[in-house]
Formats: sequence, structure tokens, C-alpha cells
Amino acid sequence: QNDLLSATGTTIFTVMSALATDHGAINLGQGFPDYDGPEDVIEAAAAALKDGRNQYPPMSGHPDLRQAVASANRRFYGLEVDPNAEVIVTSGATEAITACLMAVLNPGDECVLIEPLYDTYLPVVKLLGAIPRLVRLTPPKWELPRAELAAAFGPKTKAILLNTPMNPTGKVFTHAELAFIADLVARHDCYAICDEVYEHLTFDGWKHVPLMTLPGMRERCMRVGSAGKTFSLTGWKIGYVTCDRTLAGNVAKAHQNLTFTTAPNLQRGIAVGLAKDDAYFEGLSATLQAKRDRLAAGLSRLGFGVLPTQGSYFITTDFRPLGFNGDDVAFCRALTVEAKVTAIPVTAFYASQDAPSHYARFAFCKGDAVLDAALARMEAWI
Amino acid sequence: QNDLLSATGTTIFTVMSALATDHGAINLGQGFPDYDGPEDVIEAAAAALKDGRNQYPPMSGHPDLRQAVASANRRFYGLEVDPNAEVIVTSGATEAITACLMAVLNPGDECVLIEPLYDTYLPVVKLLGAIPRLVRLTPPKWELPRAELAAAFGPKTKAILLNTPMNPTGKVFTHAELAFIADLVARHDCYAICDEVYEHLTFDGWKHVPLMTLPGMRERCMRVGSAGKTFSLTGWKIGYVTCDRTLAGNVAKAHQNLTFTTAPNLQRGIAVGLAKDDAYFEGLSATLQAKRDRLAAGLSRLGFGVLPTQGSYFITTDFRPLGFNGDDVAFCRALTVEAKVTAIPVTAFYASQDAPSHYARFAFCKGDAVLDAALARMEAWI
Ligand SMILES: CSCCC(=O)C(=O)O
Ligand SMILES: CSCCC(=O)C(=O)O
Repeated sequence: QNDLLSATGTTIFTVMSALATDHGAINLGQGFPDYDGPEDVIEAAAAALKDGRNQYPPMSGHPDLRQAVASANRRFYGLEVDPNAEVIVTSGATEAITACLMAVLNPGDECVLIEPLYDTYLPVVKLLGAIPRLVRLTPPKWELPRAELAAAFGPKTKAILLNTPMNPTGKVFTHAELAFIADLVARHDCYAICDEVYEHLTFDGWKHVPLMTLPGMRERCMRVGSAGKTFSLTGWKIGYVTCDRTLAGNVAKAHQNLTFTTAPNLQRGIAVGLAKDDAYFEGLSATLQAKRDRLAAGLSRLGFGVLPTQGSYFITTDFRPLGFNGDDVAFCRALTVEAKVTAIPVTAFYASQDAPSHYARFAFCKGDAVLDAALARMEAWI
Repeated sequence: QNDLLSATGTTIFTVMSALATDHGAINLGQGFPDYDGPEDVIEAAAAALKDGRNQYPPMSGHPDLRQAVASANRRFYGLEVDPNAEVIVTSGATEAITACLMAVLNPGDECVLIEPLYDTYLPVVKLLGAIPRLVRLTPPKWELPRAELAAAFGPKTKAILLNTPMNPTGKVFTHAELAFIADLVARHDCYAICDEVYEHLTFDGWKHVPLMTLPGMRERCMRVGSAGKTFSLTGWKIGYVTCDRTLAGNVAKAHQNLTFTTAPNLQRGIAVGLAKDDAYFEGLSATLQAKRDRLAAGLSRLGFGVLPTQGSYFITTDFRPLGFNGDDVAFCRALTVEAKVTAIPVTAFYASQDAPSHYARFAFCKGDAVLDAALARMEAWI
């Protein structure tokens, strides 16, 4: 069997969700809302099942959704793209990221990755025979170590994979940081895979800036969006890649070998979603900001060190102030089994052993009553 | 960019479907029905959108569908599998096949493939760094050349990819052929990825036999099924892998890096489908058999050499008796542009240049009036 997969664990999100179920814990681990997405989007997807168009849609996506993605790029970022040649719909952002990596990496190429990192990045880079070059953000402010990042680029660099807003840190990369990265990408004549699934989930006036909008980046970036995150419908598994036509060919050819295409009725539903008015998108981030504030305040009150979150579904906490001495895996296990609340150990987002091991990640995309109940359980436990 | 993908073309199915649209041709190319699947399955999927369960289902599949796949294995083949540990739901059979190849192949491993072959097999094997060993069936009867097949196995063989019922040939492998393959798989201590998406589409009393049911094969086979083909809902992109628990771990870990999971409402719809009574499955194959007969008779009447089809959506034809001298790509182009009927050139299912180039594949999974209209157009053209 494949050695890399044999050596890889089942994803931490599945492991912790299963543990939560086993112990009747409130699941603040895996990042999915416990409320449903907009009714009109769901209605549109249900109606689309019933007009006799349940066969393969075009490989690169249903025309309505490709058009909607192109319009959203213009509306939110002033980015002009051709819906027929520069948008590829995928079966979720996970597939999108894998397809983008597959599109550009050859065996032996180097790919720069930033830790902490989502847990599919590293295995996919390795499965493609490419060589990961890891650079680590500096907690607790998750600063970008510029000299180290520059040093990670070299003659064999083919791509960087950038996640902003970032999971698990909640960091939104600043324009200055993005400009620094853009300069490296241009100077090393390479590509950027931009995991921007939390693009619409930013707080406190922070605005997401796609690397693709920076000078010189239009032809170098593959920008990945997620309908699941944008419409609180994580199970639908609709993702989309926006990239220059010179890259779209290979992304589509990767996609044709991975899933070929994606359910047309769900695509048509999401096309309706992307056309929603500004109030929807503003409401989404305002609602999540209030949830972040609620959970952050509660965790602070309990004694956690709460790291700032500018975007995403997640708060990272330092649990040492609680007097807990074990590592984060032990902490998250104890929290699940004893307090009946599940969080994710942040070492799961690191490749190597010497990762900071005193952080736990909590998801706040849950009903207020659920967040309050989780806080009450943890209070009783502490 | 990735060299293998840059050198690969867009899938022939997309190319020919686009050409069909451009020329207003009746599309007997890409294999999808022009009728919809069962109403109760569609209704179940629509209802499942509306009960507030649109978030990530379990990574390896919705429990209802895993249970339904396990039950179908028992009912149709007497195969006992654990729905919790030996079934993985994927975003279509394409993902399933890619995940199975990824699960077992290491770079440098050899994988035996049988030509003519579906057009994702070869690029995926190569992208994984494995080495394809191609064996060619002998037309027009698509006989398995046993000595050549045996010679393709060696000390580096890790897997064989077997497609039965077979696309594009319509061949259903016999028990004797499967026994020969099983013996090779056992003797070389390797695995079989079994693309059995047309398992329920067999004709004239031919029965599909999963390689996995042969002695010694239970632990070595990954059996891929397709809801799209079984329920005439090709756009839903629901596939499933059945395999021993010792293989399921790596298949699931491949899946977690490819798509992670698949839309729950569509999974719940297909669970309803797999529980349908025997009349449904018998009706499906009887309906398609009648369509095969209709198209085969018509093509014979027009002068095509019609090769026998025991299963699948497809008829392969020899167009030389029509007096056409060009190759199959030229023939299919002319048929599309001039006759306004689209077929697929069979050389698209071969890796190398010296493939037989006088065959065109027609899909018969279309309304009777559409089949008749296509025949009338071709008659006028000839
Ligand atoms: C795809 S499962 C994990 C969801 C998620 O993005 C997270 O919890 O980090
Ligand atoms: C996935 S598109 C092709 C459908 C099919 O299986 C075929 O036409 O051979």
C-alpha cells in the first residue's frame, strides 16, 4: 500500500468529531456551523433537482455558477475574469486545492507552506512527489518571519500555498505581508495557490485581500473559494478556482482526473447564493463576529489565554493559564472526555515534532445557546 | 506547470460534447442518459435538503448509504462487508478510482492496465509516479490475451485495474477470465482496483461477477460502484468503494485529501435507490437492452459493422464497411459536423499510436425517438 498514506493519520477533524460523539461532547472542533444556510439557496437547489437536469454538467462547472463566481470576483475585489475560461468549479475546496497543486507541481519541485497549516496540504504535496519547504508563523501574534520566508524560496520553488484568512490562527494577512509574498512569487517566477475559503468571514473591519489582486499576480495565482463556508452549507462540497486562462487548462485537467464534475443542482443553488445582496455578506460576518466575541469573552473569563482572531470560524487559545501541564492532544482529550466539550489540538496543524503544544482551537460557528452551554460545561470542569 | 497534465488533452467526452453542441448534433458520445432517474430517489434527495442537515457528513459516507451499499453487496453478490469499516462513499466513481490507485501505489510500482481503457486511468497512474503496464484486448471479440497478461505481471506489480462491464467495448468478463486474473493477482501478491460502474447494466442473461467474490480476492480487491450509472443520475457524482478493512483505511485517507466528503442529501437519496426492489434493477437492464437492440439494428441496417455488447451504455462499431477511409477521429468529426450525430473515436481509449483506428463508440442510453432521429440523420448522410 502507499507508504505516505499508511503513515498519515485519519484527519484530526474526523478523529475529534468521533470522540465528541462517543462522549456526548459539544463539538467545537471540526469547523461546521450547527445552523443551516440561506433558505432561498436551499430551495433553489431542491427545485433544480426536479427539472430533469441531473446528468453531467460541463466539466469546468455549470455556466450559471461560473458566471456567478466571475461576478463575485468583480463585485468584491474588482477582479475581471472570463467565466468561460478562468473559473473551475470543484467538489469542495479540498478538491480545488489538490487540483491546483497537481496542476503546477512536478516531482522534485519545491512548494513553500506556512505553518500552522491545514492537514491536507502536506500529504498532497508529498503524494505529488514535490518537496515541502515549511515556514512557521510566530505565535502568539502569528507574525510572518520575512527573512525565513525569503530563504525558503529558491531556484526549485514552483509554488507557495497561502491560506488567508487563516485556519487555525484566524489571521488575516495584511497588505504589506501580501506585497512581500507577491514580490517573492514574482522574483522566483512561481505560482501561488491561495486558499481563501474564509474570504467573507472577517471581523472588526479587517478586509480580505486576494493575493491575485496585487500587481503582477493576476497570472500567477489560483484563488480557491468555498460555497460551504460562504453559505454555511459545508456538506454541499462546492468549491471554485479562479485563475488566469493560462493556468485554468491544467487545473481543469487535474479536476477531470479527480472528480470530473460536481452535482448540477447544488451548483445552481450556489449561483443563487452568490447573487445575494450585500446585506447577506455583511450579516454573515457580523453574525460570526458576535459569536467570536461571545466565545472569546467566555473563554477569557474561564482563564484561557485568548489569541486574537481577525477572520475564519476559529479562536486559538493558550490553556497553560488554566494550570494544565500536559500537551494539547492530552488537553483536548481531557476536555472532551471530562468536560464534554471538544476542541482541536493545534499541533495537528504542524508537520514536525517541536510545534507549540499549548494551544487548542475552538470553533465559534455554533448557536449562541450551544456556545453558552459549552462555556458552562468547561466552567464546571475547571 | 505539471508536465504530465500539460501533455494530456481535455477529456474526449468534453471535447466531443462541446463539438456536438456547436454543431447541433445529437450527442451519442458522452455516456449519460437523456432521461432522469427514479422519482422517489430525486424526491428523497430534495426532501433531505430541507431537514437542516446540510453540514459535513462523516468522511467515509453517510451511515444510511454505507449501510445500503453493504446490503446491496449481500443481495447481489453474497458479499458480506462491514458498512462501518469496508465502504467508502466518494464524489463519483472517478474520485473512487483515483483514491484506490492512490491508496496502494507507490512511485516506481507497476500497475497493469487493459486497453482500451477509460481516459483517467493512465494519467492518474503516471501522476502517482507509478509505471503502467498495458495489455491490449483483441478486437473484434475483445479477447483477453492470457499469455500477454501473465507477462505483464512481475515482481514490481502492485495492482491491476480491471473494468467490467467494460467501457467502451461492452465486454463482460467471463468467470474463466476472472479466475485467470485472480490467480495472477494472488500469485503476485498484489491488488485489484475493480471499476464496476456498469455492474447493473448487463444484457442477454450475462451477469456481472465482481472479481472480489472469487476465492482469495476478498482482501485484495477495491470494488467501485456508481450511483450515477445505477440510477441514471450521472450528475450527482456519487460513487462507492467496497473493500476489505485492511485496505479501507488508505482509501479513506486518499479520499480525505481529494474531496473529504460528499453532499449528504444526495447520499441519502441514493440510499433510497439502493433499497429499491428487484423489479427496478431488472427494468433498468431490460430497458437498456432494448435500446441497445434498437441502435444496433439501426446501425447494422446502415452498414456499420456492429460489435457485440454484453453490458454498459455503449456499442462499438466498425465504420470501414461504410467505405470511410479516414481514421476514427476524422470519422467522428465528420459524423458530428456533417451528419449531426456525435460518437466517440475509440483510439481515445488507447495510450499508444498503433491502436485500431476504425472504431466509433455510440451511447444508446437515450430516448427511443432520439436514437431513431440519430439513425435517420446518419442514413441521410450516408
Ligand atoms: C473538511 S473538515 C474540517 C473543516 C475545517 O476546515 C476545519 O475544521 O478546520
Ligand atoms: C465522466 S464523462 C464520461 C462518461 C463516460 O463514462 C463515458 O462516456 O465513457
